[in-house]
Amino acid sequence: MAASPLISGLMEALRTLPGVGPKSAQRMAYHLLERDREGARNLAGALTAAVDKVGHCQRCRTLSETELCTLCADTGRDRSLLCVVESPADVEAMEQYTDYRGLYFVLGGHLSPLDGIGPEAIGLDRLEALLDEGEVAEVVLATNPTVEGEATAHYIGELVRPRGITITRIAYGVPLGGELEYVNGDTLSHAFSGRREV
Amino acid sequence: MAASPLISGLMEALRTLPGVGPKSAQRMAYHLLERDREGARNLAGALTAAVDKVGHCQRCRTLSETELCTLCADTGRDRSLLCVVESPADVEAMEQYTDYRGLYFVLGGHLSPLDGIGPEAIGLDRLEALLDEGEVAEVVLATNPTVEGEATAHYIGELVRPRGITITRIAYGVPLGGELEYVNGDTLSHAFSGRREV
Ligand SMILES: [Zn+2]
Ligand SMILES: [Zn+2]
Repeated sequence: MAASPLISGLMEALRTLPGVGPKSAQRMAYHLLERDREGARNLAGALTAAVDKVGHCQRCRTLSETELCTLCADTGRDRSLLCVVESPADVEAMEQYTDYRGLYFVLGGHLSPLDGIGPEAIGLDRLEALLDEGEVAEVVLATNPTVEGEATAHYIGELVRPRGITITRIAYGVPLGGELEYVNGDTLSHAFSGRREV
Repeated sequence: MAASPLISGLMEALRTLPGVGPKSAQRMAYHLLERDREGARNLAGALTAAVDKVGHCQRCRTLSETELCTLCADTGRDRSLLCVVESPADVEAMEQYTDYRGLYFVLGGHLSPLDGIGPEAIGLDRLEALLDEGEVAEVVLATNPTVEGEATAHYIGELVRPRGITITRIAYGVPLGGELEYVNGDTLSHAFSGRREV
């Protein structure tokens, strides 16, 4: 290893990014130091600002630097529809590829009793409180079509049902075992319009 | 776009990294904010430290945070051999895959008259001064086997020849049109041991 400690340290830090192995980390580090120091400074600033200021929306739990996220603060959205997803990236995917115009609830994961992830860890107490406000008429379950996502959707269905709220699940166009955020747009769009009551 | 300004800003900043498109940038941003804020802070610090403190070795011009890089400061290296490469990543590749034990000279590019990159921009005045110190007995030309790399090697050969110093060029095992830093180790190792006098 001929690289100096600070350069090696930068390569190591870059490897914490998902999908970045030793070779890409090296390429990135040299690129930034040789050709784009302004970009490196800018990235450092963007990382610090985001980590310091981005928290969670108090209504839907997605990542947000304001108390209410852009979508929850948007008075043009249909507040009678609530789509439950596992992650903020899933919100992005729904917004980009479907014509859904309601609001979201972001679990931040799925139930996983063996890992100690119970209902409160994925905000289901908050979800119940939201449903009790009485505005929501339909809950669209859009958890990942994995075993855990299915189990979580089923559990949430049982919470919603007694409240007399319509429950739908997005259709299986999404490949089983896949993750919502990596599905292509057409598939996701198709799955959304083919959602069925459960 | 449902992401807040700071999150969008982070995604945009990540896209300045080579090989990172919009989808990977999104994945990285959410990964850091949802699961690895410590990693994000650490990366910000590593970027800032490297950009602030990494300059160039005063002898070989590679990236270094000290006046002399690790290799130039290593008294165990053979100072009669000088390998001329285009970039710091090429030094890494040579160190990793060959048994070369001499020193380096890093051009930081290649001659490109149309882009206004002449001999001084790639440090050839510094190279001549180094050769005139009299320690170097063999110059190994290891520029990329591209048209520009070849032209640069030829130009340097003409500078070195009048000084009575042996000039070698690493062998063409390296695929033509390729870049040294992406060549597999065996090929590079073979090319190095098959270097010939020019
Ligand atoms: Zn929200
Ligand atoms: Zn050096």
